[in-house]
Amino acid sequence: MTDWLRSELTALRPADAVASAAVRERAAQVLRPPGALARLDELAEWVAAWQGTSYPRVDRPHCLVFGGDHGIAAAGVSAYPADVTVAMQAAIQQGKATITALGAALAVPVTLVDVGIARPTGDIRQVDALDHDRCGAIAERAAAAVDDLDTDLLVIGELGIGNTTVAAAVCACLYDEPADRWVGRGTGVDDDGLQRKLAAVEQTRQRVVPSQPLDVLRRAGGSELLAMAAATLAARRRGIPVVVDGFVATAALAPLQVAVPGALDHCLVGHASAEPGHRRLLERLGKRPLLDLDMRLGEASGAMLAVPLVRAACAGVTDVATFGEWFG
Amino acid sequence: MTDWLRSELTALRPADAVASAAVRERAAQVLRPPGALARLDELAEWVAAWQGTSYPRVDRPHCLVFGGDHGIAAAGVSAYPADVTVAMQAAIQQGKATITALGAALAVPVTLVDVGIARPTGDIRQVDALDHDRCGAIAERAAAAVDDLDTDLLVIGELGIGNTTVAAAVCACLYDEPADRWVGRGTGVDDDGLQRKLAAVEQTRQRVVPSQPLDVLRRAGGSELLAMAAATLAARRRGIPVVVDGFVATAALAPLQVAVPGALDHCLVGHASAEPGHRRLLERLGKRPLLDLDMRLGEASGAMLAVPLVRAACAGVTDVATFGEWFG
Repeated sequence: MTDWLRSELTALRPADAVASAAVRERAAQVLRPPGALARLDELAEWVAAWQGTSYPRVDRPHCLVFGGDHGIAAAGVSAYPADVTVAMQAAIQQGKATITALGAALAVPVTLVDVGIARPTGDIRQVDALDHDRCGAIAERAAAAVDDLDTDLLVIGELGIGNTTVAAAVCACLYDEPADRWVGRGTGVDDDGLQRKLAAVEQTRQRVVPSQPLDVLRRAGGSELLAMAAATLAARRRGIPVVVDGFVATAALAPLQVAVPGALDHCLVGHASAEPGHRRLLERLGKRPLLDLDMRLGEASGAMLAVPLVRAACAGVTDVATFGEWFG
Repeated sequence: MTDWLRSELTALRPADAVASAAVRERAAQVLRPPGALARLDELAEWVAAWQGTSYPRVDRPHCLVFGGDHGIAAAGVSAYPADVTVAMQAAIQQGKATITALGAALAVPVTLVDVGIARPTGDIRQVDALDHDRCGAIAERAAAAVDDLDTDLLVIGELGIGNTTVAAAVCACLYDEPADRWVGRGTGVDDDGLQRKLAAVEQTRQRVVPSQPLDVLRRAGGSELLAMAAATLAARRRGIPVVVDGFVATAALAPLQVAVPGALDHCLVGHASAEPGHRRLLERLGKRPLLDLDMRLGEASGAMLAVPLVRAACAGVTDVATFGEWFG
């Protein structure tokens, strides 16, 4: 069931306006021209608002990569066969994948959470991706994965062959717009595959629309998408700001914001993906990505790179003397 | 004398094309779709080319902040009095400044190199900033500061009240263009100050043009600008890639590239500053900044934030298994 998500959305933790105001005030008093750090100061305020402290810190970031497989992958929408998801799961677990290399370089632990690898969802062209029971189990597993962590900044991303198709389907259904607005080449599908992808998304839209936002996620989405939505709400409840990866991760969260404006206020989008739908979706959500490096990998790689900037942003307010302290 | 700079420019270390090709080849074989990391892979190739190894690493980054004072500061071109340079020097030395807070958060040591604090250069409206002897001493000191380091990535930036005026003057003279193309508000000068700044730069241009590029640096520049140019060439000689900060740092290096195209190929510009001349200058130099966060502080702050991305980029090639290693 998407009941858990729905229930969380009715009781969203508010931002701590006192904490963010204290950080804003200190940022204006430290040893530099007011506003000189611009976006970096805003990041520190954002962390303060969601950690609920005027002393925001990023000392224990943690990255969760949610993995799942998709019935639609059998329709030839990806440049890779579905069993690559399993292979990449093993590579992450053994520290040989891109995200684990980046995580090691940046001192951010990475945990893979299997919410459906080798257990594909329904083919979204014809049937719902997930039934209510499976949705409930996935949400529970994802929320538990967050609850198990001792972290002050959560990085989320995904792994799943076929999931840019699913992400495009979620967007097309959520906004009821033609497939070509949302479909890109993902991992690099060829022209024929792109046509199959467009057709699959369009067919899904015809089947799913109209649906409530959370039902779009259940019917046109997938296991790891639902898990990311649940993890994001679990983090909100626990006062943990979230750094979100690219197109698939953002698409997974978009239904939350469409359902309840402000539901993603505790989320920073780490980077703008080269997957063209991402920029369009970010505009819809009013989110400004932190980095823009033409990346299009997934695995939380773009979000991971944002972590040191958020950590530095906090230090840039808390660890710099004020003019008063220095000259007073 | 600018003789040392001139001599270095005639014997620039070439890129190691074998090393960068090896990294490019490995990046195409690791466990991700080809090209999925885009700009990040390019960074790894760039580090390999200049470190001269197919196993590029950023294990010992170091930040040098060069500080100097400027005769032109007396003309009321800054929002701050000149003695703020001394105060900020002390704040950096005691770890209470923005750059030291960022450096501590990112595990990058910061060293302040005083090349002229409280010993202002000549007022560039009327006289040359530096005579040949002082230039020689500064270049020697800056090169020695680099030679003293055991580093695999050099981060450079500056400190000096009045130095965005000087940077604008260098650009205006180098490209023989009106002051308003290059002058911005720096640390936040008011309207009257902005007019004084424009007039100072224009007067300097009338006096200095025509001059050879390195003479522009000596005549219209300043101590910390010359030091950054020298440090950059010293790093080139030693196979150390350089991450460059914002407008002032880039202006300091521009004469090198105008004198000898390719002289800055071992330099990455860490961020695009909000100081409007920076973007214009980057276009002239054909440099694409890594970050764009509206920052305008100096102190190497924008370059500092790029360090973890360069470190991660290297790991993203060297520490990820290839398809052959994984499936072979």
